[in-house]
Amino acid sequence: MNNDISINQVKYSKVNQLDFNNIPLGKTFTDHMFVCDYENGEWVNPRIEPLQPIATHPAAMALHYGQAIFEGMKAYLDPDGVPMLFRPEKNAQRINESADRMGMPAFPEELFLEGLKQYVAVEKNWIPPQEGSALYLRPFMYADEAFIGMRAATHYKFVIIASPSGPLYNKRIKLWAEKQYIRAAQGGTGEAKAAGNYAAAIRPTEIAKSKGYDQVLWLDAAEHQYIQEVGTMNIFFRVNDEFITPKLDGSVLKGVTRDSVMKLLQHLGYKVTEKLISLNEIKEASNNGSLKEAFGTGTAVGIAYIEEIGSDEDTIFVSEESPVAEKINDLLNQIKTGKVEDPFNWMVKAEIVTAS
Amino acid sequence: MNNDISINQVKYSKVNQLDFNNIPLGKTFTDHMFVCDYENGEWVNPRIEPLQPIATHPAAMALHYGQAIFEGMKAYLDPDGVPMLFRPEKNAQRINESADRMGMPAFPEELFLEGLKQYVAVEKNWIPPQEGSALYLRPFMYADEAFIGMRAATHYKFVIIASPSGPLYNKRIKLWAEKQYIRAAQGGTGEAKAAGNYAAAIRPTEIAKSKGYDQVLWLDAAEHQYIQEVGTMNIFFRVNDEFITPKLDGSVLKGVTRDSVMKLLQHLGYKVTEKLISLNEIKEASNNGSLKEAFGTGTAVGIAYIEEIGSDEDTIFVSEESPVAEKINDLLNQIKTGKVEDPFNWMVKAEIVTAS
Ligand SMILES: Cc1ncc(COP(=O)(O)O)c(C=O)c1O
Ligand SMILES: Cc1ncc(COP(=O)(O)O)c(C=O)c1O
Repeated sequence: MNNDISINQVKYSKVNQLDFNNIPLGKTFTDHMFVCDYENGEWVNPRIEPLQPIATHPAAMALHYGQAIFEGMKAYLDPDGVPMLFRPEKNAQRINESADRMGMPAFPEELFLEGLKQYVAVEKNWIPPQEGSALYLRPFMYADEAFIGMRAATHYKFVIIASPSGPLYNKRIKLWAEKQYIRAAQGGTGEAKAAGNYAAAIRPTEIAKSKGYDQVLWLDAAEHQYIQEVGTMNIFFRVNDEFITPKLDGSVLKGVTRDSVMKLLQHLGYKVTEKLISLNEIKEASNNGSLKEAFGTGTAVGIAYIEEIGSDEDTIFVSEESPVAEKINDLLNQIKTGKVEDPFNWMVKAEIVTAS
Repeated sequence: MNNDISINQVKYSKVNQLDFNNIPLGKTFTDHMFVCDYENGEWVNPRIEPLQPIATHPAAMALHYGQAIFEGMKAYLDPDGVPMLFRPEKNAQRINESADRMGMPAFPEELFLEGLKQYVAVEKNWIPPQEGSALYLRPFMYADEAFIGMRAATHYKFVIIASPSGPLYNKRIKLWAEKQYIRAAQGGTGEAKAAGNYAAAIRPTEIAKSKGYDQVLWLDAAEHQYIQEVGTMNIFFRVNDEFITPKLDGSVLKGVTRDSVMKLLQHLGYKVTEKLISLNEIKEASNNGSLKEAFGTGTAVGIAYIEEIGSDEDTIFVSEESPVAEKINDLLNQIKTGKVEDPFNWMVKAEIVTAS
């Protein structure tokens, strides 16, 4: 494999057309994309080129058989204006765990990291400097072979695109504990960041929203009793001064924020336990006053404070304030923007290392 | 909605380049595709045009969040050379059931049928006349909106492409009863013909093949005990002179062949029961000699005769012959090619109805 990344930059950047104080959510894309092709059993031709539509055969297998996985991460600016990535090696690993479950080829982790760094360096001007803003990065891989039939594809594309995202308003959210639809089951693809998992969640999320809730609380497939995740976030509960979060049983995504929050909580002296958590247990903790906080964690929103959990049967009140979660959120944001010491060496600078 | 379908035909068909006696599986496509766009809440611009790559934004939501569903059906020639479709209204209905589960818009059933008929009429020369050959049709719908974020898309494409398929060799198959991976769970998307279900099945199928089996026997997600489907087929067992097939519990695809085989079996005087079927029950039936046959049913292969079922624990022997299944297969093929009377009025002619 040739790891040299060719770079073909646009003549005129569109970045000046963007009002960084009013970034339309999810619709603005940067000037370039990183692309790499998989053919004859290897990844070839890594390149940064102008973002443009990709000519796609209508029989491209991803559109039919769903071999499509992705990652989500963000680039921030440190106080000196240097682009920073948060634990990118975690995403490099996770996309390959996803690939393995979906019968897709691994993407070389060094190339993932190097491509990402060079890409972010090229798109540096697109990173919004505003507090709480960031450049959202979307590495993804999909089967682009034109073939009708059920088997793993032999041609794939690995692509990175980016979209600037404005400051987040961490409003308190209400969850709907969903007992009919499921997101994932053990033995399925819940641990993979696979396209199909998200499609499965769309309709149930619409139903929860129509009932006045913000997000779905996903429960286990067999008993609709054990808590998995919330929307596209992992979930934590604070019971007295212990934090509990669902253990990784194969149906829960291994969130990078989840792992980071666990480490930060422990760093601050809290006990953190990964275990099977039933809705009943949370209801009891709410009733007896030991449930102090609950929150979701994910790259897109950071930390989302949970106010209550509704279901067909009853409503579980959580809390009106989330003091520890807020502290963790602030700490995380300050680490990501280089404003406090980075106790775990999580941040990676994205600078072009000029090749000789 | 304007249902008039515009037709832009190629000047020179590629059909003469194809050797109908040696059709490469899944790689040959006809000259045209049927396309229709969903925008501003309606389906617009239905058209038949030359098959060509579709310019696809790298943020097209189907590639990230998996809103992608499909159908599979076949066109045959009757003895007079008229193209025939098998129960196409069933596929028109099913794609909309899939759409509903995946948060996608319904596609008008009349337009599905009309588009399909006109498309097949245009591609008529691509229907292989050989016994057991057919033109495989692939209607599908996917989210082509460029957007980063989890919600239902607002732009979709509905497309039909076609691929000629050679005669099938219905070899006897060995199944691997899979107890670790699952294809679908109740509350999930198993009843929808959604791309993600197929991606979930690829890796487990590869594993089963590496063990020397032909297809995976899918079991329920909770107990790994109840039989769902086999590969991408529904499954039937003959116990003495009764046929049993898993009931539609939300995790099983509503196969058109399944429904047709049930009707034909009843037509021939057999009792057919849809119920929960455990692997143990089948094992007992094998042990006590009452298990006479088992077979998979689906559009792609018709009927696949099952010889045995292996698992981590033991091997269940089914049978070396499948007399009733063969009779049903023959009957089905003869109905599809107009060689016997069509007792249920299943066949629909695909002819261009000239618009005034
Ligand atoms: C289903 C699901 N759970 C959890 C998360 C959180 O993961 P991370 O913290 O790595 O963003 C995501 C991510 O984006 C997700 O899609
Ligand atoms: C999972 C699955 N089950 C069963 C079937 C059989 O359905 P049909 O008879 O409509 O082809 C298919 C279809 O193709 C399928 O994908």
